[in-house]
Amino acid sequence: MAFDAIETPFGKTDKIIGGSATYAAWSASHFTKPIQQISIIGGDFPKEEIKALEDRGVQFEGVDVIEDEKSFFWSGKYHEDMNTRDTLVTDLNVLEKFDPQVPASYQGSKYVMLGNLAPNVQLQVIEQLTEKPELIVLDTMNFWMDIAMDGLKDVLKKVDLLMVNDSEARQLSGEYSLVKAAAKIKAMGPKYLIIKKGEHGALLFHDEKMFFAPALPLADVFDPTGAGDTFAGGFMGHIAKTGDISFENMKLAVIIGSAMASFVVEKFGVERVREVSQSDIEGRIQQFVELVNFDTQNI
Amino acid sequence: MAFDAIETPFGKTDKIIGGSATYAAWSASHFTKPIQQISIIGGDFPKEEIKALEDRGVQFEGVDVIEDEKSFFWSGKYHEDMNTRDTLVTDLNVLEKFDPQVPASYQGSKYVMLGNLAPNVQLQVIEQLTEKPELIVLDTMNFWMDIAMDGLKDVLKKVDLLMVNDSEARQLSGEYSLVKAAAKIKAMGPKYLIIKKGEHGALLFHDEKMFFAPALPLADVFDPTGAGDTFAGGFMGHIAKTGDISFENMKLAVIIGSAMASFVVEKFGVERVREVSQSDIEGRIQQFVELVNFDTQNI
Repeated sequence: MAFDAIETPFGKTDKIIGGSATYAAWSASHFTKPIQQISIIGGDFPKEEIKALEDRGVQFEGVDVIEDEKSFFWSGKYHEDMNTRDTLVTDLNVLEKFDPQVPASYQGSKYVMLGNLAPNVQLQVIEQLTEKPELIVLDTMNFWMDIAMDGLKDVLKKVDLLMVNDSEARQLSGEYSLVKAAAKIKAMGPKYLIIKKGEHGALLFHDEKMFFAPALPLADVFDPTGAGDTFAGGFMGHIAKTGDISFENMKLAVIIGSAMASFVVEKFGVERVREVSQSDIEGRIQQFVELVNFDTQNI
Repeated sequence: MAFDAIETPFGKTDKIIGGSATYAAWSASHFTKPIQQISIIGGDFPKEEIKALEDRGVQFEGVDVIEDEKSFFWSGKYHEDMNTRDTLVTDLNVLEKFDPQVPASYQGSKYVMLGNLAPNVQLQVIEQLTEKPELIVLDTMNFWMDIAMDGLKDVLKKVDLLMVNDSEARQLSGEYSLVKAAAKIKAMGPKYLIIKKGEHGALLFHDEKMFFAPALPLADVFDPTGAGDTFAGGFMGHIAKTGDISFENMKLAVIIGSAMASFVVEKFGVERVREVSQSDIEGRIQQFVELVNFDTQNI
């Protein structure tokens, strides 16, 4: 949970609410509650934002508030194609002392999402869980592969599903083909793997099975920040709502994650994913059905 | 119809049979006949290749054979990622004097595919047609946009469907968003548009409707040469077989084109698309169904 300042070809923002856990929580809140947040913020994180999230079923017992310090801040600028961006500022602030503690009231959570952080911090959360969850999902990034690959490999043995983008899957596996990369990554621990390809959609792998969800082609991508986290929130929210971790239901969870991601990019920050209605979401899912559906009776 | 010499990270070939019209004809021959070829070749084009194509229902009355000259020759080398390639040699040879004539026996063709050539040559073929086809499909490339944009725009007014890749769609329209690019291109003439995205699949646009077909994720892409032409051949073959140019049936034609393209990349040249069986094709189409199919009852 953090602040971002974002510049895209369409405009720029001052400091706005951001952070993986914020995007994921807003997105998941359309499907399930409670959402038991673990994070660290400074005294500058707006109380009304916390209130708004609490009203949507997000619990803050696991969120450490350091009143006289500042929240994590990231600033970046997107290139014309929106697929690449430059980081302008990264102020770790309170994140430097993040020591996540799982409150007793959170124990027994069935669905756990570990955001992108140092593998040893992710491991520390897993080790505090007194009951084995039905599904532990891990996000990570190339940075940790560069500096903490051994730690990452330890965490991978303890999670059920890894969610990475295509270049991260290639780096982690050493394979260019995503089919080969998936086989190697599954051998490292996770039974399920989601490879996100941005505007090119997402692939879900399990055993010998493979599922592909397109990204919805959009006339305008206004701000891609948080798209992956919003995807993760929609995915986890649907899994938690249905209590069903079958491959069949995960396919739908990937579509729902993709639908939520298609909303968040329409405006800066979390605004669009906050305001979107149940019927907006159902309409968007129907667009995915129409986008990929075809009839084979003419074969 | 031509010769290619290809180098990929997996190996290299001497001069082998190639050319857009060869790939398209082999691919379409699994679905329909006759296929009325128009091309130009030299005396070096193997008689047994012509015989093999004739045995599959490909007619050669429109193919000019210049006995004492050489066929078009292209040589290229693919980079590690297989998405980019360097052209090493382009010998136009007989193609320099290509003056396509539509034989009387070809008149009345309902489905016409115009391969990637100079727009004025493509126009010359359209102008020779005495009966209006049900569907004229055009392929083109960035090269013609650079040097013959006005001619290309004239041809676009006379065709029903344009088939280009994503960078070509962007160049032709001046729009980065493929949704916006599609709207502009449809306003130039073609009622239907297919944007090919290589390993990222293909999009079909018509009116306000949009359909997405993924590329099948493959463990190995051995040689991408001819994938687009094989896609076009499968697409046209299915349309001709069914005689149905509805949007619904075009969706299936895009899937069938994608399935045929997924075969051709498994070996060098046309070998795989020649040998593939009807049950191979049906099995591959079923893989596409499984790849994108999901059940919404859990929403």
